[in-house]
Amino acid sequence: MEIPLLQLTIQAREARARRGTLRMRAGVIDTPAFMPVGTQATVKGLTPEEVWATGAQIILNNAYHLYLRPGVELIEEMGGLHRFQAWDGGILTDSGGYQIFSLASLHKISEEGLLFRSHIDGSEHLMGPEKAISVQQRLGTDILMSFDQPVPWEATPAQAREATDRTHRWAARGKSAWNAESGQALFGIVQGGFSEDLRRESVQALVEIGFPGYSIGGLSVGEPKEMMWAMLDITTAALPDDCPRYLMGVGTPADLVRGVSLGVDMFDCVLPTRMGRNGTVFTWEGRLNLRNARFEHDAAPLDARCNCAVCHTFSRAYLRHLLKAGEILAVRSLSYHNLAFYQQLMTAMRQQISAGTFSEWAAEFFRTHVE
Amino acid sequence: MEIPLLQLTIQAREARARRGTLRMRAGVIDTPAFMPVGTQATVKGLTPEEVWATGAQIILNNAYHLYLRPGVELIEEMGGLHRFQAWDGGILTDSGGYQIFSLASLHKISEEGLLFRSHIDGSEHLMGPEKAISVQQRLGTDILMSFDQPVPWEATPAQAREATDRTHRWAARGKSAWNAESGQALFGIVQGGFSEDLRRESVQALVEIGFPGYSIGGLSVGEPKEMMWAMLDITTAALPDDCPRYLMGVGTPADLVRGVSLGVDMFDCVLPTRMGRNGTVFTWEGRLNLRNARFEHDAAPLDARCNCAVCHTFSRAYLRHLLKAGEILAVRSLSYHNLAFYQQLMTAMRQQISAGTFSEWAAEFFRTHVE
Repeated sequence: MEIPLLQLTIQAREARARRGTLRMRAGVIDTPAFMPVGTQATVKGLTPEEVWATGAQIILNNAYHLYLRPGVELIEEMGGLHRFQAWDGGILTDSGGYQIFSLASLHKISEEGLLFRSHIDGSEHLMGPEKAISVQQRLGTDILMSFDQPVPWEATPAQAREATDRTHRWAARGKSAWNAESGQALFGIVQGGFSEDLRRESVQALVEIGFPGYSIGGLSVGEPKEMMWAMLDITTAALPDDCPRYLMGVGTPADLVRGVSLGVDMFDCVLPTRMGRNGTVFTWEGRLNLRNARFEHDAAPLDARCNCAVCHTFSRAYLRHLLKAGEILAVRSLSYHNLAFYQQLMTAMRQQISAGTFSEWAAEFFRTHVE
Repeated sequence: MEIPLLQLTIQAREARARRGTLRMRAGVIDTPAFMPVGTQATVKGLTPEEVWATGAQIILNNAYHLYLRPGVELIEEMGGLHRFQAWDGGILTDSGGYQIFSLASLHKISEEGLLFRSHIDGSEHLMGPEKAISVQQRLGTDILMSFDQPVPWEATPAQAREATDRTHRWAARGKSAWNAESGQALFGIVQGGFSEDLRRESVQALVEIGFPGYSIGGLSVGEPKEMMWAMLDITTAALPDDCPRYLMGVGTPADLVRGVSLGVDMFDCVLPTRMGRNGTVFTWEGRLNLRNARFEHDAAPLDARCNCAVCHTFSRAYLRHLLKAGEILAVRSLSYHNLAFYQQLMTAMRQQISAGTFSEWAAEFFRTHVE
């Protein structure tokens, strides 16, 4: 009897939005799910215990960063990523393609893979579809990503075609290199740029190879929001209903609500932690910039409706003081609150889908969250 | 019936070392006590809950920093320092003299006070002995410091005499300005430079004015360690037995053990948090620099004998990775461990004094902790 690597159980639907659970090697998570980003094997500023306390059940780590520092060997020796970073929840890793294009000094793109220099020490590396799978399997993650060649917003149709076709060939090679008996699941990544036909073709090509789940890549790369939603609409409509769908690197609270309404099950984004570090706070009333003078004497919590530890403990005035004084506790507190807010948002959406009131609730949400 | 502002109860003695409890407005603390430093109304990197979990019962805040930012008015408006920073334990504030000399741009020293420019925005301020008391009382701290003129290590005998005499006159003026009915205690600060006679004279002058407790200032300012211990020896021997003695700004673990052996009851120092931020870890085996390559593959906790949350959760290899990657969790974790270690050290000393084995234990401790 074959044990499924991933088991998506849809518990409720409303239009295209779906609520369910996703069983993976590390356990079961509720979907739609938001995954905090722990680029370097730490969600910036927080302990794993705190990440769990915000409500997160799965996090994202970056294979590119961890491959370069501290290296796969060390993490393997330390018992894998779960043990290394003391996180018992789920772990999904990005394969590194996107990071090599955005962070590294890329020297050569070939069918073999990407030849690049590390952004840390300038050392040269070749990363290809088989190695990316091997790296992620050795890191010990629960959900691996295929190695892809992202299509930039500026790509010509020919470039989009070339990168998308290569992504499919790399996906097939990665699948062949994958050891499924580890219990680690592998997702294919949909590319296709901003052409409706190429997006559909990309879905078709990946489904033919066959994966336990599918990631939607190449969105939120500079295109207008309407273009992103149009492409997402096409993509989720074409993907198999019984597999999890992960929209990579998106987004704002409004983006998550829109994504869920189009049938997305999983999200990741650096926004809650990155914005938190800069003093921007997400609340049910919208965003607020804590550096603003109007919060100087504000004894209220960041968000009166939030149940997080920061909102229970500190005033806006105190957190603003810490922020202006450059204190770490400001960064920690705002990151924590923002992540807790994101998880409360996901919880609310799951409840609304179950109650059949999601569309109505979403319309109301967009009144205070326009972007 | 007069309610004492401070009640020091000595429970055990061994030679000149003493163990006891100190009752203050905010509650009771165990002595000898180490006070983590929360310069800007936050112990750098940690939540008040974590500071409490390390075992700290009282912290130090800096009146100078808080007076400049966010200002006394705001903290008063927010219900005082306890509520502002969500700390229910004891709070002792430094009066600002030391900070004005070391951080601010000092323009004029007169009998009236110190005219200086803020290190933050260059604004000009006059701080004097009455105002320093008023600021601290309004901040809502439990133990206030008199405003003093520290004697630098380089001071000539005439300069030491002048600053010490002025410190006494300022102490008397501060006491007159102090509202004892608030329940907030006031300490006099012993100066006297590095002259045995002037040190004794300083103790005598302050005791004649009369304070609920005494701080020992002007030590650990660049002098050889032997000189520091000689001055401390004279000072604690001259101070009244029934009042708490606080050695300001000291020190390393070995310094704390030495200080306790000379009858000190309270300490504060930035070392555990500052060293932690730089990757230096205090352990029962001595210091270690986590950046050292020998910890790269080390799966052990920072200190095998430490019971703190960091040692229960993370390996040296992981923390070293975080440190090299510049992650906040490294700073948090090392600061937390170091503060927890300091508290475990204080607990050990209190137990050894009660058991009558402190001297023996201290001799053993100095074998692994030489500085």
